[in-house]
Amino acid sequence: MHRESHTDHATDMHVRPKKRCRGGRSQRIEKRQQGKVVACQTLKRNLPEYDVLNEYQLNDIKNQTNWLLEQHGIAFTDDEESLALLDAAGVTIKGNRAHFEAGQAQALCRTAPAEFYLYGRANEHQFTVGGKHTVLTPGYGSPFVSSLDQGRHYATLIDFENFVKLAYMSPYLHHSGGTVCEPVDIPVNKRHLYMVYAHLRYSTKPFMGSVTAPDRAQDSIDMARIVFGETFMYEHCVMQANINANSPLAYDGTMTEALKIYARAGQGLVISPFIIGGAMGPVTMPALIAQAHAEALAGIALSQVVRPGTSVVYGNFLTTMNLKTGAPTFGTPEANLAALVMGQLSRDINLPLRCGGHLTASKCADAQAMQESTSSMLTGLQAGGNYILHAAGWLEGGLTMSYEKFVMDLEQCGMLHRYYQGLDVNTDTLGTSAFMETAEGSSYLACDHTLQHFEHANYQADLSDSQSYEAWALGGSLTMEQRANQVWKQMLKDYQRPPMPDNIHNQLLSFIHERRVSMPDQNY
Amino acid sequence: MHRESHTDHATDMHVRPKKRCRGGRSQRIEKRQQGKVVACQTLKRNLPEYDVLNEYQLNDIKNQTNWLLEQHGIAFTDDEESLALLDAAGVTIKGNRAHFEAGQAQALCRTAPAEFYLYGRANEHQFTVGGKHTVLTPGYGSPFVSSLDQGRHYATLIDFENFVKLAYMSPYLHHSGGTVCEPVDIPVNKRHLYMVYAHLRYSTKPFMGSVTAPDRAQDSIDMARIVFGETFMYEHCVMQANINANSPLAYDGTMTEALKIYARAGQGLVISPFIIGGAMGPVTMPALIAQAHAEALAGIALSQVVRPGTSVVYGNFLTTMNLKTGAPTFGTPEANLAALVMGQLSRDINLPLRCGGHLTASKCADAQAMQESTSSMLTGLQAGGNYILHAAGWLEGGLTMSYEKFVMDLEQCGMLHRYYQGLDVNTDTLGTSAFMETAEGSSYLACDHTLQHFEHANYQADLSDSQSYEAWALGGSLTMEQRANQVWKQMLKDYQRPPMPDNIHNQLLSFIHERRVSMPDQNY
Repeated sequence: MHRESHTDHATDMHVRPKKRCRGGRSQRIEKRQQGKVVACQTLKRNLPEYDVLNEYQLNDIKNQTNWLLEQHGIAFTDDEESLALLDAAGVTIKGNRAHFEAGQAQALCRTAPAEFYLYGRANEHQFTVGGKHTVLTPGYGSPFVSSLDQGRHYATLIDFENFVKLAYMSPYLHHSGGTVCEPVDIPVNKRHLYMVYAHLRYSTKPFMGSVTAPDRAQDSIDMARIVFGETFMYEHCVMQANINANSPLAYDGTMTEALKIYARAGQGLVISPFIIGGAMGPVTMPALIAQAHAEALAGIALSQVVRPGTSVVYGNFLTTMNLKTGAPTFGTPEANLAALVMGQLSRDINLPLRCGGHLTASKCADAQAMQESTSSMLTGLQAGGNYILHAAGWLEGGLTMSYEKFVMDLEQCGMLHRYYQGLDVNTDTLGTSAFMETAEGSSYLACDHTLQHFEHANYQADLSDSQSYEAWALGGSLTMEQRANQVWKQMLKDYQRPPMPDNIHNQLLSFIHERRVSMPDQNY
Repeated sequence: MHRESHTDHATDMHVRPKKRCRGGRSQRIEKRQQGKVVACQTLKRNLPEYDVLNEYQLNDIKNQTNWLLEQHGIAFTDDEESLALLDAAGVTIKGNRAHFEAGQAQALCRTAPAEFYLYGRANEHQFTVGGKHTVLTPGYGSPFVSSLDQGRHYATLIDFENFVKLAYMSPYLHHSGGTVCEPVDIPVNKRHLYMVYAHLRYSTKPFMGSVTAPDRAQDSIDMARIVFGETFMYEHCVMQANINANSPLAYDGTMTEALKIYARAGQGLVISPFIIGGAMGPVTMPALIAQAHAEALAGIALSQVVRPGTSVVYGNFLTTMNLKTGAPTFGTPEANLAALVMGQLSRDINLPLRCGGHLTASKCADAQAMQESTSSMLTGLQAGGNYILHAAGWLEGGLTMSYEKFVMDLEQCGMLHRYYQGLDVNTDTLGTSAFMETAEGSSYLACDHTLQHFEHANYQADLSDSQSYEAWALGGSLTMEQRANQVWKQMLKDYQRPPMPDNIHNQLLSFIHERRVSMPDQNY
């Protein structure tokens, strides 16, 4: 591979209709633009968690988890090594199932850190995960993208890069994500090279690597090592892998092989049971919660026997279905209640929690999209979520990343940064001076106290419209979706690629080239 | 007034363009329809409150409230009687201000009940307010209405009646509201007659009467007495009045005159400071909360010296402004945090709390509308709100009642009924039988446990779309707003007027006729 940009190669390799040439143009502009690293706000919770179960109820769920872990066991398929490692740690293995005695999985999880540090490529993008600290990450895994301009279509590498750039531009996302959308114009067995390149090149935020095959996981790590160095990475978490359980109560070998590769490289894991109540688990939430807890504990226990101290996120993705149709539903009252309980369980085992996200089943960035997204996102934070996957862009149960929804979600991410700060009660904020200087019946707008607090008292929402009806109508009566369309386009125009040393960049390009030519294209 | 329907008179009195004749037609249909009373679900909280301040912080706010009540005092303008009543109760009066010693206002509030019962005209519509019990009421006070069909226009009596009917039809609203929208086609001094008639005739849910002049308050009560009887009403709360403070730190005579009339008739009051931070109070939330607390306590204290035991709701309407433009903003992080603290203060004084609502500054029922509405509504319930005004229909900071937004909000009211139930953790919901009967790798969809819980496990959302993209596209790619348009029209078609004895109805019509002809039309 020569010193041309990686995406120029992508453009060469994949025939695109002429009308989709905006990617090419924006890349040429981008070559001239290499800017400062975008600042990012940390998200620290100064509010209590919202615990909805009492101690006895929580114990009932924990006991059910122990029963599942002991009696039912967790299957590990196509991965003898993982079974052997668990066996060596004292777990009873019967066939391909690991049976954990009561408390055994929890004990094995104890070497995982309660908080860990996630190192982005820039100092501005290094964040604590766990305790009071939360990182927000964009959506993950959508095969489709949508915009008001082009409607819904299969995602391409250009889309992938665009979302990496948008996530990088936001002060309210701490993470570049993983498979932000599936670049379906790239052969399946080579996508990871292009995706990891984009995260490393176009962003400086932490990111997620590939988990779909052992060599792809290894490639992801090897590319990060070019940027961060192997020695540094062995002790510092610069990337993560999202490991889904194969619910109900199983892990498949593809996932556990990836788990081992990342853990051994000193990188982070998000262990996520993915359960729709009534399909991959019982329809009643207490059962589903107990099951998710069992699955997560087993996966985390494995990560710790592979390498004690591995940084893990205690994840879950629990949701409901429409019981008339079987379709998955999001942001529902039942799913939100379950999320709050997962938060209680995460604190019980003292591990960082994955929870929440701007989730919705809606097909467009409409009222339903934000009704469901707002309630699931707010709930995730109230649960004490430390790692919020799908914090921006999700539509259609994750099948689509929407450009407009992405920036809408960013707006709410900003609001939630303010929400998490809580209220600072002190002599100044109690406003004695304001009350004393303002005459009866007067407005407080011009008083000194207001002027002093003017700039920082309230989060300034830019996408939400608060102007008069008349002004709004004069401006074209735009919906939030239409305004969002303008915002993401402007963000992409304003994007400036962060700096990367030439020699590092060249090594990345060489690595990608070698890997690309070493294997034929495959679409599985 | 003859035995014609009241709204036929309204139609006679007010020339309407032909295209707006749907009201007339629906009224004719309605004459033939007189159905059973619509059932309604009670809303009882089985979740803890979400308290965000610690005891010390809360004490700082309470001390600031005491300082305001004592040093600044609360002005009562144009109402010597209220000042005299407070004076007689030991409150220090200086000019038109009542100065309460520390703890004095709180002590006067102590005769107000922690919970009270709200009697609708039908047994199905009688609800507890306070403690764990909440009632949801529609929006209040909008001069405009909007629909996808007609856009935004001044509200008419037909609109008012439509919203009363829609509220009546919902199992998730417990209350018919008050000035659900302003019927601007009726002279100001006679609107209350038509509005109270509509609440009594087209609904059987509790409602709010007029507060804009003493004779209108009295008329509202007199009309209710025709239906409920004076003796019954003296001891039972069948209606309420929303009394706004004239923030900052004042009540005007119009409101306190109405307060006295309702209290003396044994009816309920919602005492609501209405404060936009930076305008009618300081811009910092702790100051605003202390101010709202002071204003509410003073108003409630007055209600109790007028008639000890008067049913009151400890209200507030606190929000933020866009500090660049001065425009009010809703569902913001700062306003939501304030709402949670108001909840803590309501429990401190042991009174039912008004809080939350589906609030938004958006001009249309779009993503912004539901993003803001969802966060303010969910917050209001988490604060322990017992009385949620504006739970359906609000757009544009309350200037507009939207038909589409109304039914969207109803959907979320339904979800929140489920949310409030919390999780029932027991042997059955822990799902042991489901786990035992389901083979590894199988779906839980067909297992007995799922079938048993199938119907009631999840709230069934009808307006939210969870079908596949393809099915949604085939159905016309409708947004939630467009689907909502179909729903409210169908609801109005399905509406059946609840029964009312002829003699009662005739008395109501006679009363209205007498009052109408007794005064010339006035538009103030």
